[in-house]
Amino acid sequence: MSGKTQRITALQQKLVEMDIDAAILVLSRDVFYYTGTSQPSILLVTPADYRLFVRRALPFVLAETWVDPGRIVYPGDFKEVLAGLKPAGIVRGRLGLELDVIPASLYLRLVRMFSEFEPVNISDQILRQRMRKDTGEVELIRAAGGMVTRGHQRVLESLREGMTELELAAEVEDAHRRAGHEGAFAMRNFDFFMSRGPLSSGENLFRVSGFANTITGVGLSPAMPAGPSRRVIEKGDTVIIDIPTCCQGYHFDETRTYVLGRASGGVRALYSALREISDQAAGALKAGARVKDVYDTASTCASRLGVSDYFLGLAPNKANFIGHGIGLELNEPPVLFAGSDFELPESTVTTIEIHLTHPEHGAVKLEDTVLVTDAGCEFLSSTPRELFEV
Amino acid sequence: MSGKTQRITALQQKLVEMDIDAAILVLSRDVFYYTGTSQPSILLVTPADYRLFVRRALPFVLAETWVDPGRIVYPGDFKEVLAGLKPAGIVRGRLGLELDVIPASLYLRLVRMFSEFEPVNISDQILRQRMRKDTGEVELIRAAGGMVTRGHQRVLESLREGMTELELAAEVEDAHRRAGHEGAFAMRNFDFFMSRGPLSSGENLFRVSGFANTITGVGLSPAMPAGPSRRVIEKGDTVIIDIPTCCQGYHFDETRTYVLGRASGGVRALYSALREISDQAAGALKAGARVKDVYDTASTCASRLGVSDYFLGLAPNKANFIGHGIGLELNEPPVLFAGSDFELPESTVTTIEIHLTHPEHGAVKLEDTVLVTDAGCEFLSSTPRELFEV
Repeated sequence: MSGKTQRITALQQKLVEMDIDAAILVLSRDVFYYTGTSQPSILLVTPADYRLFVRRALPFVLAETWVDPGRIVYPGDFKEVLAGLKPAGIVRGRLGLELDVIPASLYLRLVRMFSEFEPVNISDQILRQRMRKDTGEVELIRAAGGMVTRGHQRVLESLREGMTELELAAEVEDAHRRAGHEGAFAMRNFDFFMSRGPLSSGENLFRVSGFANTITGVGLSPAMPAGPSRRVIEKGDTVIIDIPTCCQGYHFDETRTYVLGRASGGVRALYSALREISDQAAGALKAGARVKDVYDTASTCASRLGVSDYFLGLAPNKANFIGHGIGLELNEPPVLFAGSDFELPESTVTTIEIHLTHPEHGAVKLEDTVLVTDAGCEFLSSTPRELFEV
Repeated sequence: MSGKTQRITALQQKLVEMDIDAAILVLSRDVFYYTGTSQPSILLVTPADYRLFVRRALPFVLAETWVDPGRIVYPGDFKEVLAGLKPAGIVRGRLGLELDVIPASLYLRLVRMFSEFEPVNISDQILRQRMRKDTGEVELIRAAGGMVTRGHQRVLESLREGMTELELAAEVEDAHRRAGHEGAFAMRNFDFFMSRGPLSSGENLFRVSGFANTITGVGLSPAMPAGPSRRVIEKGDTVIIDIPTCCQGYHFDETRTYVLGRASGGVRALYSALREISDQAAGALKAGARVKDVYDTASTCASRLGVSDYFLGLAPNKANFIGHGIGLELNEPPVLFAGSDFELPESTVTTIEIHLTHPEHGAVKLEDTVLVTDAGCEFLSSTPRELFEV
């Protein structure tokens, strides 16, 4: 477990660099990353020490954490955290908090309790650290990719004329679940809400729900307006499936495009362009590459192939990114934004996510989850990257 | 739709009572309640007026909202909201925000933008208003209850020796999904994370994960430690299933207890006591009843039946409530806490959720979702309330 306790050591170094006197972490995924437990707990980290304050379920925590029992306080709450700082001589200074996720009411309570401290957002540093995956993390992401492949195989077995988008999604979701998908996914974004994942077909491919400029599906109702609907899938329809999985906390995001029956020449040509753009982007992805260069490789290729107007959707619903980091959250930094100067670190796991929407032929989409290495990028699932005629 | 526009009128009355000059709502469920859309939007309500500022997906919004198009601003963001207040002469005062859910970073941004205003939490009033369900809401909750009953029927069809908790959960989840379950659920609590719902069997009944003092299951991994595990279900095992559904935004929460094979005398006696306690609590539930009286009815019955030590779990994991409101969120106020003086309003929908955990016989649980009326309470699903021997 020494590799994992290094995670806290690395955070402590960040605290020193940022002149932060103490950091208080509460989001379950962040606490899980540093401690191995996502039971309700508070992780206090100072440049010289750390403590895990466990609110409930101590037996679970002791069975799963790599934190030394001597550093565990139970029962632990924010009062105990405050009391724990005093003996260390930390009574004022800069206090790191996950300001992007903790609710305002909790923030206001902490500001009152830790009144001698100045709150500072620590989430960017946590996410920056989480960006580089270790071997164990990559293996869990790969395992989640295996689940997605099982879902793909279920599509090939079950897609048929007259079934609804919901019935097809239920097949995929069932295959994922039986393969060990945790059954939910984690997003850092506030109030991100999308059922079990996008599935869209036919004219729904043009209907882009507001949560993201991609292929969203329209959902079952306005209460959760993304994902499969009750639309009946007909012969010749294109179906795009983008339902993610989660293995032991680590996510996988992959999209494949299917046609029920034979694809038209227009759809085939569109997919052929999409595949070339995606391959070019993958070829440009490697450790040290600048995000904007990868993005430009894709958009230049789209221009060369004459599909710029369809690249990442039709105006005004065009997306401005071609992928995103993935790990303990389904969408993490780095986002592969147009114009971003960010240099991709080695061992980052990211998606390459591109779609083309044509006003007549509909949409095609291809998304893969890849590991960024010094040599290039490695695809983490074995799902073929073809257009599937079923 | 006049009944639904009344929802904003009622909120405006609250603003006047609370001396709030403007309220800014952003949480999708709250915006959905007042407007019929959950697309990314900001709802501005003042005592005399309201406006919906739509960020994206205007065609979706126009197709689903009952807000007059003249009150819709597109594209709308917080700057537009601020600009919209000035012509109304609202340049300072008290600003209602959903402080229990908006992230600290958004709160700090709004405090800077609306620097002449004093932020006030408005969520309690919103939730208080949402507590009383109208006829349409009750029908959606009832429909979600029909989905849960389909899951129950699937258990009776599929439970067999040697299957894992995960396999059984996958059956239930598939039945729910095919019946129209939205596929996710909404919680107001920060960082509440529990897969698709609790399922627990055998010795796992004693393992209570930290998110709630009830029967949680232990989950597939420490990353999401509640819900079904890979434990194999054996002959004679008790299985408790508490997997919720959501129909068009409205949730249903129901728990049933199953035994694979014949129940022992001990389990039968325990269930018989549970059923009587639940029936007594249901008998005490009606509009105007005080929560503590309902709770005391249950706990007094448990004492009379000699099962106090097992009532709501074994110490130290005893729960202190016997139900919770339910609607656009899976857990809403009112919580039926011990000692609560709250008087139940007419048309509240709440669960009655009781379990008994016996150190030898394991646990049994019964949970129903009911409508509180002047006459008493109405059960909103048709799932039988027996102990099922499968």
